[in-house]
Amino acid sequence: MTTLQDCQALDAQDALRPLRERFALPQGVIYLDGNSLGAQPRAAAARVAEVVQQEWGQGLITSWNKAGWITLPERLGDQFAPWIGAGAGEVVFTDTTSINLYKVLTAAARIAREDAPARTKLISERSNFPTDLYIAQSVCQEYGLELVLLEPEEIAGALQDDVAISMLTHVNYRTGAMHDMAAVTAAAHARGILCVWDLCHSAGAVPVDLKGADADFAVGCSYKYLNGGPGAPAFVWAHPRLINRFWQPLSGWFGHAEPFKFVPDYHPAQGIQRYLCGTQPMVSMSVLQCGLDIYTEAERFGGMAALRAKSLALTDLFIRLVEERCQGHGLGLATPREHAARGSQVCLTREEGLGVEGKDSGAYAIVQALIARGVIGDFRKGDGTGRHKDILRFGFTPLYVGFEDVWHAVEHLRQVLESGEWQQPGFNTLNAVT
Amino acid sequence: MTTLQDCQALDAQDALRPLRERFALPQGVIYLDGNSLGAQPRAAAARVAEVVQQEWGQGLITSWNKAGWITLPERLGDQFAPWIGAGAGEVVFTDTTSINLYKVLTAAARIAREDAPARTKLISERSNFPTDLYIAQSVCQEYGLELVLLEPEEIAGALQDDVAISMLTHVNYRTGAMHDMAAVTAAAHARGILCVWDLCHSAGAVPVDLKGADADFAVGCSYKYLNGGPGAPAFVWAHPRLINRFWQPLSGWFGHAEPFKFVPDYHPAQGIQRYLCGTQPMVSMSVLQCGLDIYTEAERFGGMAALRAKSLALTDLFIRLVEERCQGHGLGLATPREHAARGSQVCLTREEGLGVEGKDSGAYAIVQALIARGVIGDFRKGDGTGRHKDILRFGFTPLYVGFEDVWHAVEHLRQVLESGEWQQPGFNTLNAVT
Repeated sequence: MTTLQDCQALDAQDALRPLRERFALPQGVIYLDGNSLGAQPRAAAARVAEVVQQEWGQGLITSWNKAGWITLPERLGDQFAPWIGAGAGEVVFTDTTSINLYKVLTAAARIAREDAPARTKLISERSNFPTDLYIAQSVCQEYGLELVLLEPEEIAGALQDDVAISMLTHVNYRTGAMHDMAAVTAAAHARGILCVWDLCHSAGAVPVDLKGADADFAVGCSYKYLNGGPGAPAFVWAHPRLINRFWQPLSGWFGHAEPFKFVPDYHPAQGIQRYLCGTQPMVSMSVLQCGLDIYTEAERFGGMAALRAKSLALTDLFIRLVEERCQGHGLGLATPREHAARGSQVCLTREEGLGVEGKDSGAYAIVQALIARGVIGDFRKGDGTGRHKDILRFGFTPLYVGFEDVWHAVEHLRQVLESGEWQQPGFNTLNAVT
Repeated sequence: MTTLQDCQALDAQDALRPLRERFALPQGVIYLDGNSLGAQPRAAAARVAEVVQQEWGQGLITSWNKAGWITLPERLGDQFAPWIGAGAGEVVFTDTTSINLYKVLTAAARIAREDAPARTKLISERSNFPTDLYIAQSVCQEYGLELVLLEPEEIAGALQDDVAISMLTHVNYRTGAMHDMAAVTAAAHARGILCVWDLCHSAGAVPVDLKGADADFAVGCSYKYLNGGPGAPAFVWAHPRLINRFWQPLSGWFGHAEPFKFVPDYHPAQGIQRYLCGTQPMVSMSVLQCGLDIYTEAERFGGMAALRAKSLALTDLFIRLVEERCQGHGLGLATPREHAARGSQVCLTREEGLGVEGKDSGAYAIVQALIARGVIGDFRKGDGTGRHKDILRFGFTPLYVGFEDVWHAVEHLRQVLESGEWQQPGFNTLNAVT
């Protein structure tokens, strides 16, 4: 049996431990929801005061050049590119994940229409994050494609000659299951299918090698593992072989070859800059840099190899402790045990009918009871079919979560279950945001 | 002749004067570029510290509900709606002007395709702000429309039965000339043409009555007269009769009828919420509220009627002083003298060939020499045809610009011209952002 002392020993040996001090975490909170909204870097407070009071307040319009606002989307892209296996000049931070997905799906649809007009399908996962499916639905409607939703085990067989585009999220938001990006991409390319990857739950959380996997397009958000702040601008990447083939349709002035020439005709910039559109929110974008800077610092602590090793150790420990200490309460594991198939979160299921008065699974109330104790995870509702069950979701950001945190989180879960306190009235108002 | 004392007397009588104290303006600067980037509200410093350190740092994921982040786009829209003649539930702040324009132009193109498929043209102004033309170019390409660019005096005659959409910017960014929104919209509607208005240079600067004018769609930015901060989220409005007719194509989860049900099919929300897409940058959006709060406060000081009266008095004074005190240097007036046709800026031209060594107009160097003296305006290059000349552009935000500022600005301009200091090397590196 694993003990508290074992966990404390793991923290004592943790080479990444100093990075936890880069974050301002509330007293008394064990934060296992960094896969929804990352924690606040301490540097953000000073940085945001500087950008508001000095750069904006004192520098005013001159800060577009003097403070480097104008190039920040590209500079942040270059800074973060190595963490996803991209090169300099291939990534920009801009707009939102949904909007960036619209850009790359449209580009992919235009390329497919030109290269392979007979292909009629865009495939994705039924339990993909909904906004991805909504955007795909819109693009399919515009380009005459059929959106085909699959279960994970159906994907390999569906990569056929009638498919134009595969749009998958690398790590599933509900289960934490991770696709083999290189293998899926290779199988898709063997059939002439373009691959679009959503990295919302993998950027900064797991090793990503877009060029190694030979992916075609990728998008992702910065407010989860990257700790960029609520709604911080998202990122977009396109493989250099495709980047200049088509305009994306959101052809705003920041994507123009010469945005400050103010000419009436659109001429897209060469390279990823053409995926920019309008003026970006510089206060939010400046704060985002504080999150990325911690990744840059993490290079000195072993980079992604060290983060991944710790992430797997944290999630392994959580699974082990739940299984050792929370038996007999109807919990199950939705996340793969196999390391190669796991992101940086663990999702538990609970049997239907074990909820209050025998209704539902009780998973939502258990999460609320944990939050009341300061253990912040979140809940994702099932679809009622039994295939996609109610989920208790716990994210483990190796930059700031420690092994003792895992111990206490499971101990709180054990107490919540054994005491029955989750059945108290009040633990039942939905307030979840991915 | 107007004197400094006359200007000081106007400041002494200015009922809006207390609002200037709401802004943190740099010492020694006369800021006449609020039509490019508005000044920093003093409240922004405390607000941004609160949103970063308390709401994000301490509240973490719970702030989406507890701090009201989730509803901020709609709440800010409701707060500002009266200033543009819109009703509650009709405006949201979100994304960028370019992206919002893409949404409404696509919606308009879809409506036109259904209602009037024989119409083939989208008309706009040749000197419209370029990003509007770039987005229109993209939408025209997708919907098989022809983008027709006109001079202002050609517009009335071009409102014919072959036009599907008129896309105009209410106040021109280069000249400060203002269209008669009600008259143009009525003439367009008489021919069955949909009217899209860009309010970037008019929201908060001049009276706007979208519903009074019976406009169809409108967009605008918040970082100019609204003082929302660099790149703060833009706004979008659709007339209630049109709002639910079509999806806009950026069908992200925040525009879904039930975004947190996480269903795989897109069902757009009723109302302006369907013009939302992805997760918004909450740090920037929270700062934006500080700018809008000053407008709310301005209601007590006479609201838009008082702001407009002061704006016209400021721009009248600037024109008069330039004409009285800067004769003989080749300056001309690009902005209409007629009040009904003027926004809140004054644009001067300068004769070609009067620049350094007889090249160009010298307008750029004059603006740089003024900036070096702390008088911040900006420069917009002409198109070399003589029709659209080089512009020295000065914006007058009545919330914080005073009459004595105008005196000193013109006095600096006079000294720059008479001393010839603008001809010094170094006043010639382009750094303009609208």
